Amino acid sequence: MTENKIPYKIYLEESEMPQAWYNVRADMPVKPAPLLNPATGKPCTAEELGAVFCGELVAQELNDTDRYIPIPQEIRDFYKMYRPSPLVRAYCLEEKLDTPAKIYYKFEGNNTSGSHKLNSAIAQAYYAKNQGLKGVTTETGAGQWGTALAMACGYLGLDCKVYMVKCSYEQKPFRREVMRTYGASVTPSPSMTTEAGRRILAEDPETTGSLGCAISEAVEDATSHEGYRYVLGSVLNQVLLHQSVIGLECKTALDKYGVVPDMIIGCAGGGSNLGGLISPFMGEKLRGERDYEFIAVEPASCPSLTRGVFAYDFCDTGKVCPLAKMYTLGSGFIPSANHAGGLRYHGMSPVLSELYHEGLMEARSVEQTKVFEAAEYFARVEGILPAPESSHAIRVAIDEAIKCKETGEEKTILFGLTGTGYFDLYAYQKFNDGVMDDYIPTDEELQASFAKLPKIG
Amino acid sequence: MTENKIPYKIYLEESEMPQAWYNVRADMPVKPAPLLNPATGKPCTAEELGAVFCGELVAQELNDTDRYIPIPQEIRDFYKMYRPSPLVRAYCLEEKLDTPAKIYYKFEGNNTSGSHKLNSAIAQAYYAKNQGLKGVTTETGAGQWGTALAMACGYLGLDCKVYMVKCSYEQKPFRREVMRTYGASVTPSPSMTTEAGRRILAEDPETTGSLGCAISEAVEDATSHEGYRYVLGSVLNQVLLHQSVIGLECKTALDKYGVVPDMIIGCAGGGSNLGGLISPFMGEKLRGERDYEFIAVEPASCPSLTRGVFAYDFCDTGKVCPLAKMYTLGSGFIPSANHAGGLRYHGMSPVLSELYHEGLMEARSVEQTKVFEAAEYFARVEGILPAPESSHAIRVAIDEAIKCKETGEEKTILFGLTGTGYFDLYAYQKFNDGVMDDYIPTDEELQASFAKLPKIG
Repeated sequence: MTENKIPYKIYLEESEMPQAWYNVRADMPVKPAPLLNPATGKPCTAEELGAVFCGELVAQELNDTDRYIPIPQEIRDFYKMYRPSPLVRAYCLEEKLDTPAKIYYKFEGNNTSGSHKLNSAIAQAYYAKNQGLKGVTTETGAGQWGTALAMACGYLGLDCKVYMVKCSYEQKPFRREVMRTYGASVTPSPSMTTEAGRRILAEDPETTGSLGCAISEAVEDATSHEGYRYVLGSVLNQVLLHQSVIGLECKTALDKYGVVPDMIIGCAGGGSNLGGLISPFMGEKLRGERDYEFIAVEPASCPSLTRGVFAYDFCDTGKVCPLAKMYTLGSGFIPSANHAGGLRYHGMSPVLSELYHEGLMEARSVEQTKVFEAAEYFARVEGILPAPESSHAIRVAIDEAIKCKETGEEKTILFGLTGTGYFDLYAYQKFNDGVMDDYIPTDEELQASFAKLPKIG
Repeated sequence: MTENKIPYKIYLEESEMPQAWYNVRADMPVKPAPLLNPATGKPCTAEELGAVFCGELVAQELNDTDRYIPIPQEIRDFYKMYRPSPLVRAYCLEEKLDTPAKIYYKFEGNNTSGSHKLNSAIAQAYYAKNQGLKGVTTETGAGQWGTALAMACGYLGLDCKVYMVKCSYEQKPFRREVMRTYGASVTPSPSMTTEAGRRILAEDPETTGSLGCAISEAVEDATSHEGYRYVLGSVLNQVLLHQSVIGLECKTALDKYGVVPDMIIGCAGGGSNLGGLISPFMGEKLRGERDYEFIAVEPASCPSLTRGVFAYDFCDTGKVCPLAKMYTLGSGFIPSANHAGGLRYHGMSPVLSELYHEGLMEARSVEQTKVFEAAEYFARVEGILPAPESSHAIRVAIDEAIKCKETGEEKTILFGLTGTGYFDLYAYQKFNDGVMDDYIPTDEELQASFAKLPKIG
């Protein structure tokens, strides 16, 4: 098929949808470092992890040898409710930028959770249900993960308890309401329902909460109630595994039209979207079959890859979770109130951290107002109001397309459009009113945070 | 193809998308009555209408003979950004209801405006641009139409002035913000910028506004500024014409799989969605080729078809617009604060009114809490959070599917899912909190309103 026959949107047939997730760890010559038990300093065993996570998910977390892991039929059926997601050829954007670059984006926002998070939420909820559990607990910041999990649990009839960072709970009442509509219970964190919450409230009754604190509460709730486990929407190996459906669908769609991307761009907070998007392409690179340029884009306010250190650190500020080896700003680092809530995480997926450490992937950080400029431009040209998180990738894709205009290169650019900004209009309002800030942490702040890293590994 | 091969979602190829709108009036033996000039009591001429609307749109408004009207290439290209919309086979809903009915819905919510309104917004903005106008004015209540028009104008670089009913402006700041992000100016109505607004504010400084008042302001703004025209998102013949893309895509998709619906259900406020959805099917019925059952669903709080009268009435409360012959509750009827904002209109499209008057279509009214019960049920089972407006159609589709279970009939039900409820979570919250009301107007109220109808026609 010739390239000018590529439609605006490529939808795969149901029969072309992935039947197995791709596990990039199987192709990594250097595996991501194992999670450590902070008490012993030794790798967590399946048994230890099983107290917090479902059995099947622990197996997936530890599996770094099987290249493909079959997607159960029930999950594939659920995927059919909102997948395949469209791979969009950004003809309008190309024309407006007057660039010779060819731009594609994989749009994951066409489901009620508003993002790619549902891909892993349904998998985690399914395994919990399958294990005979009553319910799951989790935390949510921006609210995309909490909404996705509420949807998955609502569908399966599983109890869902969400600890929502208090300031988000108050600023985003509508996010909370979507979760309630899907039957989830939503508790502002810190709360009086957990030991961790009571301790934090005793120290600082006025605190507006943090993701780290909410994680601690959710983990405590799960481990102290019979029939519950904790689930997490990013960072973990299992999450990147589930999110590989994004990249697998992309690859099938591009292969169908004989298109090979030169660069693949994604926003990166904990790494769930970027990891899922690039996995199958990174696999080809690792196996020496084809080369690609990968770019992780993070907020300048929370620059774990570009300014962090590669070290063992806690996944949560409460220090109840295992230690992970990753690029981190320190688990005590409190990101500024950057509106890309989903990217306000101090660490980065161990898989992506390892790939970045080996120079297989680049990273860039961008400032918030530049991100919103790109978001508004994109919204008007391509008709989709993007999430602030996703707009980090848009910013760099536009920058690269402009470079192509200058050099005359006809590069093929693929980026991940992870979600929509319908629940982020408070941030858009700040941008529209010209009162958005661009806080960047100082070197001193970061050094002070690094000094508190655990002395392990 | 056998029926069990029907996918969860049917997406047409771009090449299968409609190249012309279908004009159902061409097949109607009794045409809808013409718009009347309230000053003369005579049918509005093209010249009179041209002072308010673009020339090409006036031609479309008056054209009741051409069965097909070609869609300009530029509009077809814009449609490709968010269309074809999926025709969904509701397998999950069927299974959950344990019904022998086969349920399909056409989902129009996968675009940033969140509804089908964009189909006509881009057409109206295109013709305005093509005529060399500077901009357009309009009113919006729930905000879907205003958002759609802002998107279309943002894309074409056309000035867009939206008069937003003041109570919505204040209760839905995020709707307002989306419009601003797309470059529209949004004015709470009534405002001090128009004669109509000043008059209403002088009478009642505390008024929270109404759709009728906002229409009056938008029309005055357009007719008093060089290079501007007024556009409207429903009721008009031209709008139903543009919205026929919904029904045309449905018909092509169903034909592909050899599926023939027994009943077609849509929510009805001004009639834009229902008219667009049923048009091509109604055409077959009018030409005696095939029979279908059509059901219009309206809120019990604003029951123009089920309890209104078929008479000439003003389209706006300010009485600046032409008179239309339609089912109406009286232009002075103020619907209760029903949350399905998009269905709070006193009248009904003249095309649909005529079809209903001739018994070619049924109508039912449903109460709000029953609508939200269906909405929540649907959200959990099918994964889409529906708009309150759309949920009226869901309610009746579910009721009909349950009837099929009782009778054992394997009916094929098609309904229109016009949009998403992301900006209606205040209403969902009321439902979740159990504090939603079910106001229904009394016969006395309606009789008092009918008594004030103009004595024309």
